[in-house]
Amino acid sequence: MTARKNLFYAQSGGPTAVINTTACGVIETARRHRDRIGRVYAGRNGIIGALEEDLIDVYRESASAIAALRHTPGAAFGTARFKLKGLEESAAEYERLIEVFRAHNIGYFLYNGGNDSMDTAHKVSLLSTQLGHPIACIGVPKTVDNDLPITDNCPGFGSVAKYIAVSTLEAALDVRSMARTSTKVFILEVMGRHAGWIAAAGGLAGEGRDDPPQLILFPEIAFDEAAFLARVRASVEKNDYCVIVASEGARYADGRFLADAGSRDAFGHVQLGGVGQVLAELIKRELGYKYHYAIADYLQRSARHLASAVDAEQAYAVGRAAVELALEGQTAVMPTIVRKSDSPYRWGIGVAPLARVANREKMLPRSFISRDGFAITAACRRYLAPLIVGEDYPPYRRGLPQYVTLKNLPVRRKLG
Amino acid sequence: MTARKNLFYAQSGGPTAVINTTACGVIETARRHRDRIGRVYAGRNGIIGALEEDLIDVYRESASAIAALRHTPGAAFGTARFKLKGLEESAAEYERLIEVFRAHNIGYFLYNGGNDSMDTAHKVSLLSTQLGHPIACIGVPKTVDNDLPITDNCPGFGSVAKYIAVSTLEAALDVRSMARTSTKVFILEVMGRHAGWIAAAGGLAGEGRDDPPQLILFPEIAFDEAAFLARVRASVEKNDYCVIVASEGARYADGRFLADAGSRDAFGHVQLGGVGQVLAELIKRELGYKYHYAIADYLQRSARHLASAVDAEQAYAVGRAAVELALEGQTAVMPTIVRKSDSPYRWGIGVAPLARVANREKMLPRSFISRDGFAITAACRRYLAPLIVGEDYPPYRRGLPQYVTLKNLPVRRKLG
Repeated sequence: MTARKNLFYAQSGGPTAVINTTACGVIETARRHRDRIGRVYAGRNGIIGALEEDLIDVYRESASAIAALRHTPGAAFGTARFKLKGLEESAAEYERLIEVFRAHNIGYFLYNGGNDSMDTAHKVSLLSTQLGHPIACIGVPKTVDNDLPITDNCPGFGSVAKYIAVSTLEAALDVRSMARTSTKVFILEVMGRHAGWIAAAGGLAGEGRDDPPQLILFPEIAFDEAAFLARVRASVEKNDYCVIVASEGARYADGRFLADAGSRDAFGHVQLGGVGQVLAELIKRELGYKYHYAIADYLQRSARHLASAVDAEQAYAVGRAAVELALEGQTAVMPTIVRKSDSPYRWGIGVAPLARVANREKMLPRSFISRDGFAITAACRRYLAPLIVGEDYPPYRRGLPQYVTLKNLPVRRKLG
Repeated sequence: MTARKNLFYAQSGGPTAVINTTACGVIETARRHRDRIGRVYAGRNGIIGALEEDLIDVYRESASAIAALRHTPGAAFGTARFKLKGLEESAAEYERLIEVFRAHNIGYFLYNGGNDSMDTAHKVSLLSTQLGHPIACIGVPKTVDNDLPITDNCPGFGSVAKYIAVSTLEAALDVRSMARTSTKVFILEVMGRHAGWIAAAGGLAGEGRDDPPQLILFPEIAFDEAAFLARVRASVEKNDYCVIVASEGARYADGRFLADAGSRDAFGHVQLGGVGQVLAELIKRELGYKYHYAIADYLQRSARHLASAVDAEQAYAVGRAAVELALEGQTAVMPTIVRKSDSPYRWGIGVAPLARVANREKMLPRSFISRDGFAITAACRRYLAPLIVGEDYPPYRRGLPQYVTLKNLPVRRKLG
């Protein structure tokens, strides 16, 4: 073992278009501090890699492969939906983490994820001190859902927002141009289980009340079938067509989702899908309009080909800042994005204690949703607009983006 | 009336990412021949605009608006699903067309569409001569389905092919990275009612048998449930995940579609949708794997942000060639794309008689599909690969593509 501590980095939860951009920021920054940081290890399949002592030796990748992470979607080291519970309930897992970190001389733990991951990073920080092997635990924000508190926005969200805004605009031009004899209503189903941030981004496609999308359905607003159908009919009668952006989390006043696939994932979350179809059939039955619907699903969060340049820049910056915070001796904190002004858009990096971030969800404020519940407000537009600015195109070869697949070579095990 | 004849241009059927690129080619070329072509009129909502004498005066648009058509998706003048039948069955409509063309001194009719439109253009040519008002009728190829005969490929297809290949690649990176604890099987449902060209394009995302997509379902191959499930299971057991590209036209041996929404459009075609869901539920029931599916729907054919540069160039070229053919005195023909070599890819413009194009569909050859029916062959790859090459990005402002909406001012009516 050397005096220099190693750094452990893990990805958590659903990938985004730019989670690897953050990984690139972490690794490239760590490489510039070889005097203080030994090697960088990554968890194979996220925190599971630590629990199973299945670590990836990141420094066996070439510098060009690491640089290519910047423009590669997915989660390059593997990620997991794996939630550690309380320190008592999941005591064995937490202790195992500390044991693995101790065995591999890990002094820095960077956990790149959403609410649940911030909670885990916080608990590891507490326990590592209790167990006499203090580790600098830094949460690194990532979530397409944009629902972390304190930070102005979350890396990953700007790119999905751009994808949804552009896709809504493009599909609307298509539908509008053939509405006379064909499809009248088009529905784009988007992610956002509890918070309507992604659905709201669809609102950037148009500006006026008659611009597409003519309706947005948010999880924050109880679905009012009569008001919805009246608005669809009014749009078709006035504009000849209607474009709807519907959150997968759209729900009735009693909390039931419009579409509930019935299965649950590892976090106990209901697995959603199908709101587009439910709405389409409702419209067909009640209004008789021909419809089409698209389900963006994973396409929206992996669309690195259409990443927001602002998002990519911020994703890299939080990775770099996380390493710098660790080197400053901080622990149980998360770098945040701080907005300094809307127009011109200016931002910087701040710091938030994990205790104030963990397990808290930031919903779309009511002031960001129009009075009738079907559109975004000017305040929402001011918030969202800067986040999709700029195109950060990947390099292409023969028509396809040049995404990298790492070697992901294992670190030799030291434990049983 | 002047000695110069006017040109009438109409868009038909579903829009593509580049049908307006063809319109731009038509209009800019006509403008360079003001000595021989009077004004350019477009049909509002396609051929319906001619039948209703609702013509758009294209020359009242600015040159910059016309130039912006080159990078704008949708169908800028409106399009229609409206099929004229035989000359006797639809005699009134054909005679009305000639009447309107005569009233507006139209000597050139350019019809931009697929099989049905080529048939209409052919019949108008025949009838106009019979009625003593001969019109140069040129079919201009356009279809994402790539199913027109004689031409090597169809403008619109290259861009949807690129979109599907890139989306398959990106979603596969996403699924692969979290397969350990989450989704094992991802299905991308794509267009292609009768021909598997679009589904085949998904095959460009990977090269080896274990690369994504691990399975493709073509309309040309009868669905074999047992073989399908065996391949899905084998991929999950070997690769930890499985990506499937499924054509909306996938069908059983008896011809029934896997998913049949039950309604029919104006052409009497069954309206499809839902193969992704049917496959997902089958996999869940028989194999127990967690799944996700995306339905690209209109996003795939309107994704001008990811247009193939080769496709955009060819779309413009067929528009230009159509005007030039008309000026040469040709009629009842369609400009084609002629492939001169695969690698390096070289192509030129040819000419085909509409009588040989109309109402014929070009299916994916069996030699382009692997023996087991679930993948593309090397020959298919050689055919497809050049068509997605190059990125023809639209200009952006504040994060959104700068698509144009035309004024579409009407031409004064001359008939009742």
